Amino acid sequence: MMWGCVTDFFTYETTKSVVVKSWTVGIINRVVQVFIFSYFVGWVFIHEKAYQVTENSVESSVMTKVKGFGYHNNYVMDVADYVIPQQGAAIFCILTKVIITENQFQGKCPEYSKKYSCVEDEDCVQHIDKILSNGVITGVCLNSTIGDKIVGRCESEGWCPAENDHVEITPMLDVINFTIFIKNSVRFPLFDVTRGNFLSTMSREEIMNCNYHPVDSPFCPIFNVGDILNYTNQDLATLANKGGEIGINIQWKCNLDYDIENCVPRYSFTRLDKPFEKNAISNGYNFRFAKYYMTENGTEFRTLHKAYAIRFDVMVTGKAGKFDTIPTLINVVAAFTSIGLGTVLCDIILLNCLKGAKQYKARKFEEVSDAQIEASLAQSPVSQLSLKGGIKSSYDSGAISLATSDQAM
Amino acid sequence: MMWGCVTDFFTYETTKSVVVKSWTVGIINRVVQVFIFSYFVGWVFIHEKAYQVTENSVESSVMTKVKGFGYHNNYVMDVADYVIPQQGAAIFCILTKVIITENQFQGKCPEYSKKYSCVEDEDCVQHIDKILSNGVITGVCLNSTIGDKIVGRCESEGWCPAENDHVEITPMLDVINFTIFIKNSVRFPLFDVTRGNFLSTMSREEIMNCNYHPVDSPFCPIFNVGDILNYTNQDLATLANKGGEIGINIQWKCNLDYDIENCVPRYSFTRLDKPFEKNAISNGYNFRFAKYYMTENGTEFRTLHKAYAIRFDVMVTGKAGKFDTIPTLINVVAAFTSIGLGTVLCDIILLNCLKGAKQYKARKFEEVSDAQIEASLAQSPVSQLSLKGGIKSSYDSGAISLATSDQAM
Amino acid sequence: MMWGCVTDFFTYETTKSVVVKSWTVGIINRVVQVFIFSYFVGWVFIHEKAYQVTENSVESSVMTKVKGFGYHNNYVMDVADYVIPQQGAAIFCILTKVIITENQFQGKCPEYSKKYSCVEDEDCVQHIDKILSNGVITGVCLNSTIGDKIVGRCESEGWCPAENDHVEITPMLDVINFTIFIKNSVRFPLFDVTRGNFLSTMSREEIMNCNYHPVDSPFCPIFNVGDILNYTNQDLATLANKGGEIGINIQWKCNLDYDIENCVPRYSFTRLDKPFEKNAISNGYNFRFAKYYMTENGTEFRTLHKAYAIRFDVMVTGKAGKFDTIPTLINVVAAFTSIGLGTVLCDIILLNCLKGAKQYKARKFEEVSDAQIEASLAQSPVSQLSLKGGIKSSYDSGAISLATSDQAM
Repeated sequence: MMWGCVTDFFTYETTKSVVVKSWTVGIINRVVQVFIFSYFVGWVFIHEKAYQVTENSVESSVMTKVKGFGYHNNYVMDVADYVIPQQGAAIFCILTKVIITENQFQGKCPEYSKKYSCVEDEDCVQHIDKILSNGVITGVCLNSTIGDKIVGRCESEGWCPAENDHVEITPMLDVINFTIFIKNSVRFPLFDVTRGNFLSTMSREEIMNCNYHPVDSPFCPIFNVGDILNYTNQDLATLANKGGEIGINIQWKCNLDYDIENCVPRYSFTRLDKPFEKNAISNGYNFRFAKYYMTENGTEFRTLHKAYAIRFDVMVTGKAGKFDTIPTLINVVAAFTSIGLGTVLCDIILLNCLKGAKQYKARKFEEVSDAQIEASLAQSPVSQLSLKGGIKSSYDSGAISLATSDQAM
Repeated sequence: MMWGCVTDFFTYETTKSVVVKSWTVGIINRVVQVFIFSYFVGWVFIHEKAYQVTENSVESSVMTKVKGFGYHNNYVMDVADYVIPQQGAAIFCILTKVIITENQFQGKCPEYSKKYSCVEDEDCVQHIDKILSNGVITGVCLNSTIGDKIVGRCESEGWCPAENDHVEITPMLDVINFTIFIKNSVRFPLFDVTRGNFLSTMSREEIMNCNYHPVDSPFCPIFNVGDILNYTNQDLATLANKGGEIGINIQWKCNLDYDIENCVPRYSFTRLDKPFEKNAISNGYNFRFAKYYMTENGTEFRTLHKAYAIRFDVMVTGKAGKFDTIPTLINVVAAFTSIGLGTVLCDIILLNCLKGAKQYKARKFEEVSDAQIEASLAQSPVSQLSLKGGIKSSYDSGAISLATSDQAM
Repeated sequence: MMWGCVTDFFTYETTKSVVVKSWTVGIINRVVQVFIFSYFVGWVFIHEKAYQVTENSVESSVMTKVKGFGYHNNYVMDVADYVIPQQGAAIFCILTKVIITENQFQGKCPEYSKKYSCVEDEDCVQHIDKILSNGVITGVCLNSTIGDKIVGRCESEGWCPAENDHVEITPMLDVINFTIFIKNSVRFPLFDVTRGNFLSTMSREEIMNCNYHPVDSPFCPIFNVGDILNYTNQDLATLANKGGEIGINIQWKCNLDYDIENCVPRYSFTRLDKPFEKNAISNGYNFRFAKYYMTENGTEFRTLHKAYAIRFDVMVTGKAGKFDTIPTLINVVAAFTSIGLGTVLCDIILLNCLKGAKQYKARKFEEVSDAQIEASLAQSPVSQLSLKGGIKSSYDSGAISLATSDQAM
């Protein structure tokens, strides 16, 4: 009994096949198989590299350094003056135009803008609690000297005098000659691979004296601001006057199945406010900051700066792929199974369209009906004999019939 | 010979099937198939969109601008005063309470806190090399006037006088009326799709005058701080007094198979220090910064600010999906194969549970044993005849038997 | 007719199998199946957790706080002095050496460096438009007192006097005793799981008084700078003198099928400029910033700081996995199909290598050739009888033959 089970277990089941020696179906069969096979090899495996596990999230650290001098308001500005924040961050601004309101003290004073013109106090009540003024509107109308005229303006409380940001100032166009040095190191945590954006073959001198060019010098980490504006089709005068946001994208696309030295960065440049073109809003980029001073007697005062700036966002994206058994297996399995799909097509042709379809059907399908089984059960002894060939396998356990089905998959 | 190979190659093999005309198994078979089919169509394909390739990493650029005025310590603070850093970054702080220690010069002076009370020098030795003081503890005990009493305090070297951060200051509650404007542009590198967080149908006026509301105005980029506190169930007084961290999440979930205009942001708000609730530590958010001044004779001094702030982190997450052949194929293959799993169940029922199971087994399985083969080999000429039907295929190459197995998958 | 269709539809087709009772093939078959099965269970499912859907992109918020005092240039520096930016960002710098150029006013003055030595104006023309000077080179040669000698130096316009950054300054080595406190909260958007980097079992006192150690105290959020330098094998003196970039990596690897309390951070430390070792460039990290002052009569002047700093980048990466039906299904299907691959091997052995291979082939393959079909069609009545068993199934629709193929997959 035990022995029988063991014998039954160590059997091998394979599907019984009908071999159709027909040129029509034979050729269709092979052509479909070749077609599916090429698709998998060519597209899925070679082009899409489905045998690799890929990692999209990259750990990145960016250090930047700007160099250059510019004239603004008869001042020579250097890095410490025009770069904010100063510590070499991945997102930094180069100030191109600064509207300065000097010597602001806390107090009450008239607003500057025409919007706040008034004749009597009632005119100012509507502006109370609005946030676009220079300070808290008190609801009082004051006389104010603007240029050489005396006009009525609502009073506001805060830093005085109020800012006038409608002055015309020539932006610092020298920004076109500035250079940006970018140091970027990335790590793919999944593969524990670390890379830097200088080729290891570049010497110190090469790196210090190069200038990025997409074709001639694609791995140079020094970028000329003028070039970047060109790549993004920006007009210097407009950008310097209104400010703007430019993205410097560093893309790492690494095939770690090859030599690690082929894992190099690719730089691209975009204007970040491009998606907002359709809205007529917020062209440009500006912000306000203040420098604080103290008088001899200890009163604080400040100089307000409304700064128009070109903001550079260095954004790093990475994708690394490496051979891995699991995606390979899944895709190989999908490939083989898809090749099996050819059978569906051929079966339809064979069993429906070919001359002799009925005969093929008769050979492919063997029919057992309830009626037959009932009949054979009734005339038991004889039928048992006639079915003799298969009777022994009637001791097959469920496990075996499961295995059969596995193979059928 | 060659011709024979070619003929053999262009054959078509299909599995031989047993068609069971039984209502029981037939119905079970179809029901299982329908069930699996619906699961794949409904859940895997329609709900989970398994036919798409998805991208989780998004390239994002965020610009922010805060507006509003607040009273603090009889000062009117504006953006340049209370926003740090000032350049409109994705992570910014709005100061709500500032404890100011004025006119600090380098020197030696007594500590302020009771913790450093002393009678003689020995009492101060324990504090040497500790880092929670205001300066380097020298180990000397000094007399210090605190309020109107003279008490002993350990001497520390550094910026003097020492900070007293236990004063009660009314925080700037006006923060509730401030507004935050957020400009966000994202790019999905895989699909090279760029989007901005304003609808392209919104005009300049609409954008400038709207106020975000989750239902009425879900695409407005201007957020009221008071509303944000409401959405996160924060108490203004506590938050302004102790500081805190609030996350503004912009979620992009884009189905790129539809019109790109449906790819819109969804905003949500969370209190970021929520995971630390169980620890009684670090509720709140504060940091220290200094403003530096110079006396007439060139000595530097500073005003130390201990600033309690609400920090806003604008965090952008994105997920985009687009139809792609590879995941579609893999899932279609999985679907078909799973439908084949129905066979396993039906086979078990057919071969074990049905009346006439033995007969079905006999029809499904054809048995060949070593003994039979040996016997047929022994009485060679006769057996060859009886097996004649299959003999020609004995010239089949390995390639063909491989193909057979493919179909069997 | 209708009824016939229904009867045909509710049939069940199963492949006809040949059961080979041979020890050789039986054992090979089972061994291969066991091997493939173990691979899937052990590697794919248990080790690689292929039954989980994983999320790699994590939403993270980092807050840092540095504590400690250091002596630099006879000053005691505290947090407000040496941390930039001050607001507790994820990327922050601790200044370790600062070269100060005091009292710079806008004007014209000689350069400092030997590189700009000149005898007459012509010597300076070459330097015009170069950006490594301290200001805009005017092309004039001036006499300059350096130390106690009078030498010729090119004139530059900008902030004067020019910076001399070749002075020897002792860096602030006390940095070794500083501590960094890190608060990190993360969210996995896909699963909407939020975690913080303190264990919920840690009390306020435990957190405040602990010190991170990879083995003894792996969840303490307070890091000693000296320890971090040790973990990254950095030399304090070199790093403090030249500056450098250190990465603090917080890695979240969460199996959300287990208790959420097991989802804890793991800290690691790296020197970020490691990938640039081969290039002799840019060891170290420095940047320039200025503090602005005003004279009594309203002229602005500044103190330029060239700051060498250790920059810390807190980088957070996360990976969370959770059971999901779709990857489970795909991998289960791949597993079953791969087990079916065993059949390929066994078929090759059975049909080519075993004694009696011809006989096995004869039993597995049933051949139908065009010739046979033609013949049977010619002598129609008789053949119909001889094929009687299969004729009824000739009414099978295409749908059924498709279903057959599904099962065959």
